[in-house]
Amino acid sequence: MPKYSTPTLESLALELGFPVVGLKNPQLLRSNIGDWARVPLEFQESDLLIYLLHREAKLSFVIVTGATSFLFTEYQYVGVFTVAFAILIFLFHGSVESFSTQSLPCTYDPSNMCKPALATAVFSTVSFLLGAFTSVLSGFLGMKIATYANARTTLEGRKGVGKAFIAAFRSGTVSGFLLVANGLLVLYIVINLFKLYYGDNWEGLFEAVTGYGLGGSSMALFGRVGGGIYSKAADVGAVLVVEFGTNIPEDQRNPAVIADKVGDNVAYIAGMGSDIFGSYVESSCAALVVASISSFGIDHDFTAMCYPLLISSMGILVCLTTTLFATDFLEITNVEEIKPALKKQRIISTILMTVGIAIVSWIALPSSFTIYNFGSQKLVKNWQLFVCVGVGLWAGRIIGFVAEYYTSNAYSPVQDVANSCRKNAVTNICFGLAMGYKSVIFPIFAIAISIFVSFSFAAMYGIAMAALGMLSTIATGLAMDAYGPISNNAAGIANMAGMSDRVRERTDALDAAGNTSAAIGKGFAIGSAALVSLALCGAFVSRAAISTVDVLTPKVFIGLIVGAMLPYWFSAMTMKSVGSVALKMVQEVRRQLDIPGLREGHKKPDYATCVEVSTDASISEMIPPGALVMVTPLIVGTFFGVEMLSGVLAGSLVSALQMAIFAFYPGGAWDNAKKYIEAGALEHATILGPEGSKLLKAAFSGDTIGNPLKGTSGPSFNILIKLMAMESLMFAPFFAAYGGLLSKIF
Amino acid sequence: MPKYSTPTLESLALELGFPVVGLKNPQLLRSNIGDWARVPLEFQESDLLIYLLHREAKLSFVIVTGATSFLFTEYQYVGVFTVAFAILIFLFHGSVESFSTQSLPCTYDPSNMCKPALATAVFSTVSFLLGAFTSVLSGFLGMKIATYANARTTLEGRKGVGKAFIAAFRSGTVSGFLLVANGLLVLYIVINLFKLYYGDNWEGLFEAVTGYGLGGSSMALFGRVGGGIYSKAADVGAVLVVEFGTNIPEDQRNPAVIADKVGDNVAYIAGMGSDIFGSYVESSCAALVVASISSFGIDHDFTAMCYPLLISSMGILVCLTTTLFATDFLEITNVEEIKPALKKQRIISTILMTVGIAIVSWIALPSSFTIYNFGSQKLVKNWQLFVCVGVGLWAGRIIGFVAEYYTSNAYSPVQDVANSCRKNAVTNICFGLAMGYKSVIFPIFAIAISIFVSFSFAAMYGIAMAALGMLSTIATGLAMDAYGPISNNAAGIANMAGMSDRVRERTDALDAAGNTSAAIGKGFAIGSAALVSLALCGAFVSRAAISTVDVLTPKVFIGLIVGAMLPYWFSAMTMKSVGSVALKMVQEVRRQLDIPGLREGHKKPDYATCVEVSTDASISEMIPPGALVMVTPLIVGTFFGVEMLSGVLAGSLVSALQMAIFAFYPGGAWDNAKKYIEAGALEHATILGPEGSKLLKAAFSGDTIGNPLKGTSGPSFNILIKLMAMESLMFAPFFAAYGGLLSKIF
Repeated sequence: MPKYSTPTLESLALELGFPVVGLKNPQLLRSNIGDWARVPLEFQESDLLIYLLHREAKLSFVIVTGATSFLFTEYQYVGVFTVAFAILIFLFHGSVESFSTQSLPCTYDPSNMCKPALATAVFSTVSFLLGAFTSVLSGFLGMKIATYANARTTLEGRKGVGKAFIAAFRSGTVSGFLLVANGLLVLYIVINLFKLYYGDNWEGLFEAVTGYGLGGSSMALFGRVGGGIYSKAADVGAVLVVEFGTNIPEDQRNPAVIADKVGDNVAYIAGMGSDIFGSYVESSCAALVVASISSFGIDHDFTAMCYPLLISSMGILVCLTTTLFATDFLEITNVEEIKPALKKQRIISTILMTVGIAIVSWIALPSSFTIYNFGSQKLVKNWQLFVCVGVGLWAGRIIGFVAEYYTSNAYSPVQDVANSCRKNAVTNICFGLAMGYKSVIFPIFAIAISIFVSFSFAAMYGIAMAALGMLSTIATGLAMDAYGPISNNAAGIANMAGMSDRVRERTDALDAAGNTSAAIGKGFAIGSAALVSLALCGAFVSRAAISTVDVLTPKVFIGLIVGAMLPYWFSAMTMKSVGSVALKMVQEVRRQLDIPGLREGHKKPDYATCVEVSTDASISEMIPPGALVMVTPLIVGTFFGVEMLSGVLAGSLVSALQMAIFAFYPGGAWDNAKKYIEAGALEHATILGPEGSKLLKAAFSGDTIGNPLKGTSGPSFNILIKLMAMESLMFAPFFAAYGGLLSKIF
Repeated sequence: MPKYSTPTLESLALELGFPVVGLKNPQLLRSNIGDWARVPLEFQESDLLIYLLHREAKLSFVIVTGATSFLFTEYQYVGVFTVAFAILIFLFHGSVESFSTQSLPCTYDPSNMCKPALATAVFSTVSFLLGAFTSVLSGFLGMKIATYANARTTLEGRKGVGKAFIAAFRSGTVSGFLLVANGLLVLYIVINLFKLYYGDNWEGLFEAVTGYGLGGSSMALFGRVGGGIYSKAADVGAVLVVEFGTNIPEDQRNPAVIADKVGDNVAYIAGMGSDIFGSYVESSCAALVVASISSFGIDHDFTAMCYPLLISSMGILVCLTTTLFATDFLEITNVEEIKPALKKQRIISTILMTVGIAIVSWIALPSSFTIYNFGSQKLVKNWQLFVCVGVGLWAGRIIGFVAEYYTSNAYSPVQDVANSCRKNAVTNICFGLAMGYKSVIFPIFAIAISIFVSFSFAAMYGIAMAALGMLSTIATGLAMDAYGPISNNAAGIANMAGMSDRVRERTDALDAAGNTSAAIGKGFAIGSAALVSLALCGAFVSRAAISTVDVLTPKVFIGLIVGAMLPYWFSAMTMKSVGSVALKMVQEVRRQLDIPGLREGHKKPDYATCVEVSTDASISEMIPPGALVMVTPLIVGTFFGVEMLSGVLAGSLVSALQMAIFAFYPGGAWDNAKKYIEAGALEHATILGPEGSKLLKAAFSGDTIGNPLKGTSGPSFNILIKLMAMESLMFAPFFAAYGGLLSKIF
């Protein structure tokens, strides 16, 4: 763990990109904390700026250092895993005949690696490592951007809500585009490099490229799980320290508070970045793989093969245009306009993208061609492929609307939940659960309809394209996802630095809008994961040469129920980890609180050790759930065969889809119902006096259940299903050749 | 709603089966409530008996009247539904060629009903009505027994814990055997009567008999849902009245308390009785139907066909023998022995049944024969069928062990959950959820293994037999399920009648043992439901003439995710209902509390109106979720076809199985963790003072979430999946002939 030293004012100002003006007497500034904080904005602007800059930068520096240290520790563990898994991929792929042999025939001899098998092994391993590296890089850069942006947003908050919004939103946009461009560029380079060897052997090429997606999402798994455990444990730990009657408020004197902020960054910026990166490259890989094992009855296969990449590229252009509407054409002047501005972003990008898809489909595709895949032959017109992509795009939009409807306190569900707090905690929980169960209905129908339409038009290729459509405007989505934690941190910094109420009001409003964005983003993530996984399942079944996945054969059915159980098992592990890491953090905080002078604020707490303790604990806790996801397909495929594995994939997909929605939406609703009551928006109710405290108590009990659901178990479900599908696809030739050992014995 | 008048002492004594001795001066008795309750047991035995008898009988009479009135109101609504559905069955079956035509050929002409179609329609309708009637009768008689037994158990509690246990357990046993014998006898009569017409046409006969199972489980659905809503609403309502600061304790002066007790009876006795009756006859029907559409390569098909019935009959004998061990051979002398006595019942019955199955398989079956079903042909040896039944039986036992392990406070999971309350409510909820997720793992593996083994030996017939095996010792299971609410009511009566601490301690111990029994019973119910539904799905697919249920065809996959969503939708409805019915009850209680003299106990509250209000509310709330379950298969089958319907069945089965376990086990664990803390069993912790009240507060918050999960949404899941499967099977010929209207249009 790298130790940090207090930076100089100048170095900080430079690092944060602020001009160092009027640096009169920093010693004086430092010793006059209380007085300076109350100086009005107009007065001694430059001095105050420097002072605040220093205070915030110090806090934000501690956060950055903690988050960086967490990530480096995580990467050490994950690095070992990556190397081990890369070796596994090399061995498995080197040992079997691969699809590439269809074009490059070679006598099958497992004891003596033939050239195409060796080539596939090498290329798969390389693309796996590249995927892992790019994913880690995306997460890391995203986090760097976010941690620099949060202090800046706080400072801009002094100039007005519009400026603060632009600071937060543009930073989010930078991460978003960086990530998407990164993913697409590396993918494009990989494809073109591999093409030098494979030539027109698309099956072989995209079999090797699959590794890129697997690498990306295996990093995402560890990022999400490790970050999720860390972040919720720090959250729970910070609250516990306060509750234990240690008379330490949730401010700088509580060492767990900084750990909490670090957690937000590693989980919701770095983890989320890796996650969305994983989704994005996986959906691209899925589309490419499905395209490669489909046969197109047109001359220029390359055009059809690159159609997915063209759609993604068009997505970047559309998102770029959309961004102009947020920060240039429409300026925000008061806090009420934040939510509508974000909503506009989503709607504008969706409408523009619909046009974009039409243009790409019209230019890149012949007016009609034949797709042969999964045993079916379909005559596809270019407008039908447009519909496939479009239906995915709009299904995503609908899932977003539903998320907003159920989690935003502008609509009746959250208000109903808030109202139910008037009775007691029981009714709050009943209403929240009822709402949560109900919120599953529409997203499922949206996904079901998009599957039906896209499959009817273009079979499995259509489903892969629908998934890609849903993720096509992800740059905008990601911008808003990153915007959330940036604003949250900005609000936290404003609070801790004791800034004026006016500034805090603005940063709080930015933060509140971020909550709904987060729920929408998570809805998107699981919706697209379902489509991607289904397409990957299809590719797996095709590559493993299974004829049907008949539910009513015992192998498939057993796979189905065991697969459906996996998200429960996984949640059991992560949930328990949160509890035990939180406990370790509380112990460390208690140790520090016994240091004389710390409680009184005379002595600075040792933030670094607190962060270190919980980093080590959460990273070692990350291994069992990670192993469950990575090892299950290998065990099932090797010992029980591909039929059972296909059942496991379908079962986990079906179960995780519902569980994820049921985790996010009620979690968000309880959280916002609590905020709604706290803001005093509940009719005929006061939050003062015993009546009000009863109300708040009931509201808190709901939030308490929602927190681990939406923060820990929920966000990992989508990676779980995508990763298992991707891994199964990767090892399909091996399983098909050598798998099902147990059924061969009996 | 029938009004009740205060009964005379003599009539009550007669009704409860107690001798009217020493009836000296009832007026004096009535006026000396306080003094008489403190008279020691040895002193003036006969007078005291009469006095207590009178008090308890009055309370128990109010409960009986309320419960009866609820059931009659429910039966009125359900009666209308039953008639409507019977007409539907008649029309659907009358309009299509049925399986019976395989043996009795008849020209197909939908406009002119041919004889076998008409016969199937008539017989199916008759068996549906008989099933519905028998189910209602089982529930009603079970409740009558239980409500008479509770006062008796309380009185026996004065003589000793052994006597009280015998009173509660024997009453439970009577309900158990009554129900099982009832189900089997009527089924046997129906088969033999129908055989007069059908002769050796087994397919036709058992197609008609399917209606019996459907009738049984459709009544169970309404019983469980209506009862579940009523009971939890009354529970929540009673607590709410107390919480609202009306200064009314949870005693006789609170009109909602009686409603709460009524709820226990209608939900956990009548509803549960109908439910288990449904499971029992459905598993029998499933086994018979699967047997009938399989072909046995032996001369005496009748033997193989009656094998399922023989297994069930053997089960009754085994349970009868087992009962002797509880009440005759092993007498209980102190409260510690209650739980082991119940556990012994389960183990003894399972061991004896294993021997019983071996005997039946050896005597009734030829040493080897061929089963042709679902396209596969298997040579089955009689020991293999023994293993099929046995693996189901022992899988049930394992599920029971897991339920006990996770919900009994004798083991570490509940103790861990209790320990986590030391921190706060958040950790309690995290630990409870983590435990709940974890508890899903083993039951799923137990079911998966039993499916694998039984299918490997005897295909779908094997799975049906495994389901039957799991339910073969149901008479004992049911005895213990009924024992729970009887003891619970007995403890409540002892409490309300102000009986001595000694008596209350005994009845409380009986009650605590009942809690774990309830969780085990529910685990059994869902486990057997999964197997039964799978067998029914198999029969449906076979009868609907679908070749495969391929997950990766869009129709099936859409069915799968929509099916998996149905339990969520269903839960949303029931959960919301609990809230709104509770609110109506609170309003009525508030109205009554304004009546002068009622608060002080001078005036008796109007229990009847309170019961009436919540009865009407919960019965009207029961209709939408009931309709969802009943109508979904009809809509999917008619408009989208049998492939999608098979997906819906598989999806709901997979999803409900996990959700049910995840609802029961953490619910039970939170409840028992609270009891564990209340009993002062937590090491180094006191429940006195502020520290203790924090502990209890944390424990209560867990119980609050667990309550609606285990009481409302959980218990209906098993009926949901069985009923949909049964209904689909019933209408399979119709769907196959006319279904999939929408896919025909497009």
